[in-house]
Order: sequence, then structure tokens, then C-alpha cells
Amino acid sequence: MTITITAFERSPDGGKGLARDTRVRWALEEAQLPYEVRLVSFEAMKAPAHLAIHPFGQIPTCEEDDLALFETGAIVLHIAERHAGLLPADANARARAITWMFAAVNTLEPPILEFTMAWLFERDKPRYEERLPMLKARVRTRLEQLAARLGEADWLDGAFSAGDLMMVSVLLRLRATGVLDEVPRLAAYVARGEARPAYRRAFAAQLAVNKRSPEAGA
Amino acid sequence: MTITITAFERSPDGGKGLARDTRVRWALEEAQLPYEVRLVSFEAMKAPAHLAIHPFGQIPTCEEDDLALFETGAIVLHIAERHAGLLPADANARARAITWMFAAVNTLEPPILEFTMAWLFERDKPRYEERLPMLKARVRTRLEQLAARLGEADWLDGAFSAGDLMMVSVLLRLRATGVLDEVPRLAAYVARGEARPAYRRAFAAQLAVNKRSPEAGA
Repeated sequence: MTITITAFERSPDGGKGLARDTRVRWALEEAQLPYEVRLVSFEAMKAPAHLAIHPFGQIPTCEEDDLALFETGAIVLHIAERHAGLLPADANARARAITWMFAAVNTLEPPILEFTMAWLFERDKPRYEERLPMLKARVRTRLEQLAARLGEADWLDGAFSAGDLMMVSVLLRLRATGVLDEVPRLAAYVARGEARPAYRRAFAAQLAVNKRSPEAGA
Repeated sequence: MTITITAFERSPDGGKGLARDTRVRWALEEAQLPYEVRLVSFEAMKAPAHLAIHPFGQIPTCEEDDLALFETGAIVLHIAERHAGLLPADANARARAITWMFAAVNTLEPPILEFTMAWLFERDKPRYEERLPMLKARVRTRLEQLAARLGEADWLDGAFSAGDLMMVSVLLRLRATGVLDEVPRLAAYVARGEARPAYRRAFAAQLAVNKRSPEAGA
């Protein structure tokens, strides 16, 4: 069985690992599964062939035999359910790990994305002064709640799981803003994720694509 | 085994069914599982006893025996995995249904929430004119992509699944804005969800709570 994922031909972040294919690469590396990558241009993402496997015209997708999946959380869960290394064996612990996956994409990522987009694109606009502190405060509340739950533990629920993989990936979006470093316990948590050999292989693989791209400035 | 969920003592929407406990009630009704409800005030949601089961101080939660879960998508998936009625038996179809669950909470809900919050709370502010059309256009793009994928089908991937339950629940947020009716195929899809007996029982149950509340205007 060959696993084929899609990724940006040229990532908007130039290879910082924030494109969502990095999450899928990380999961595949944790599960020690080989995979192939099909690079997609922005034009191709909106064309019928890609829309047939991703109705919202995004990356990543994941194809194996006659199954084509989109949506990063679903792909990571699919890998985690079928291979060792990403979900605990105990049924209750497994349900809690999946809870953290949903918390990452539904409770943390939306306010983080709204804040980082405003931070990137609205700093020169008049509404910046009013809106950005509010968006940042909303993110800080979530980070402090998450840090309180994490406590002194290495991972959110015992051993490293797909829940941590998704949470670390979402928190990484905050690094450039400086907000992650304002909560040292979470900065250390993210650093633990980045130190995993599987993450480092995934990061290197997406960077290699973007270094090849003439406009990425490599 | 007794299943206990939490819900708002007084829902911010006054019983329109948009509070996330409705999604869990709906899943439990589809699976024909009895459940108990513990109502939580806004003060209690931020108190240690509730934070112990929901680190972000929200509802719903779901407790059974020694397992306590939060995050609506995770709770619905937990129910769907253990009881008939919400996920297909075929492994590939099951993975696709879970994909729609993640798409609902990570691809559709964030732009929908950002638009509906701006529509509710920013219409009287100067930035309204600039921001709201942009937020609405972003939602419309996602709705048109979703309608294109749905086509003439009743549900997103064959039989009704937890993916439809989550997607219909997310789309319901748009009804008050008029935007859902601008895409008739999705308005009809949502209406099919609302017509299901399990949804109607779930809706009635949350309405009964909010009708009892003196400030809900019943």
C-alpha cells in the first residue's frame, strides 16, 4: 500500500513548517510509515482533479488504495487508529487523546488563527489598536487554561499522543508573535514536540520542498 | 452505566439550539441512549470542579463511569464509535464520515463563527462596512464548495452520519443571518437534519431547560 499526501508546491510560510502537511508528515513519521508527496500549485488546488479529493481546495490530502481523505485532523486520526505510536491502547485514554485533537483544532486553533492573521496583516490598519489586544487576550486565556491543565507533565495525558501532535502544531503558529514565549510552560511543551525525531524528519522534509522553490529565497 | 452531560443553566441563545450541548443530545438520541443533564451556571463553569473535567471552562462535557470527556466533536465521536446509528460499518466510509466531522469544526465553523459574531456585535461599529462583507464572502465560498460536493444527495457520504450531525449543527449558526437561505441546497440539507426525530427530541430537551429559565422570556 502506497500512501500519497499532497503539499504546497510553494508554501506560503516558505518552509517554517506551519503548512498543515507538516502535521500529516509528522504523524506518518511517528508511525514509521513511508509516504510519497504530490506537490500542488495554487492553481491546481482549485482545479476539478484536486477538488474531487478535497472539496475545499486545500492541502493536505491523503490517499491510499481506494481511500482519499482530506482534513488534517481526520488524516492524523486515521493514521493513529491503524498504526502504533500515536494513540494509547487503553480505551479511555484513547478517547481522551482524541479529545485533545478536537480541542486543538476547534478550541485553540480558531482564536490563534484569528489573532495571527490580524497580527500579520492588520498591524498597519486603524482598527489594529482596538482589535489586536482583544484577540491576543482571548488567545492568552486559552493558553493559560491549557498550561494549568498540563501542569508539570511532559504531555497532555500521559504518553505522547496524536493529541499532543495536533496541539503542538497549532501552538507553533504563535511563535513568531512572541505570545508563545509569554507562557514558558507551553513554550517548553512545544520545544519537546519539536525535539522528537519524527517531528524533525517531517520538518526537514517540508523544508526541502520549499528550499527547492525559487521564490522561497533559498 | 449512566451518561451525564453538562449544559448551560441559561443558554446565551435562549433555547434556539445553538449551544453545543444540542449536538451531544442529538448524538445520544440517534444512538438511543438515555442521559442525564447537569446544568451549570456561568460562575460554576469557571470554578475548579468544572475545570477539572473541562480545562477551558465550557459546556458540554460527558461523563460515564470513570471517563470524563469534553469537546463536542470528541464526545460525538466517542458515542458514534460505541453505538450504532452514527457511523457506517465499512472502514473507508467510516474514515470519510469522521473527515466530515473535522471539516465541520475546523474548516466551516471558524469562519462561520467569526462572521456571525461580527454580524451580532459589530454591526454598529465603523469597521462593520469594511470587515463584514469580507467575512461573509469567506463563508459563502465555503458554503458553495460544500453545496457542490453535496450535489443532489441527501447526506454528505451516503447514509446520515456523525459527519452530517456536526455539519448541520455548524450550519444552523447561519440561519439568523439569512446566509444559509442564500444557498438553497444547504438550507434543504439543514432542514433534513432538523426533521430527524432524534434532532427534534434533542432540540425540545434543550428548549425545555431554557423555558424554565426566568430570564429566557418564556
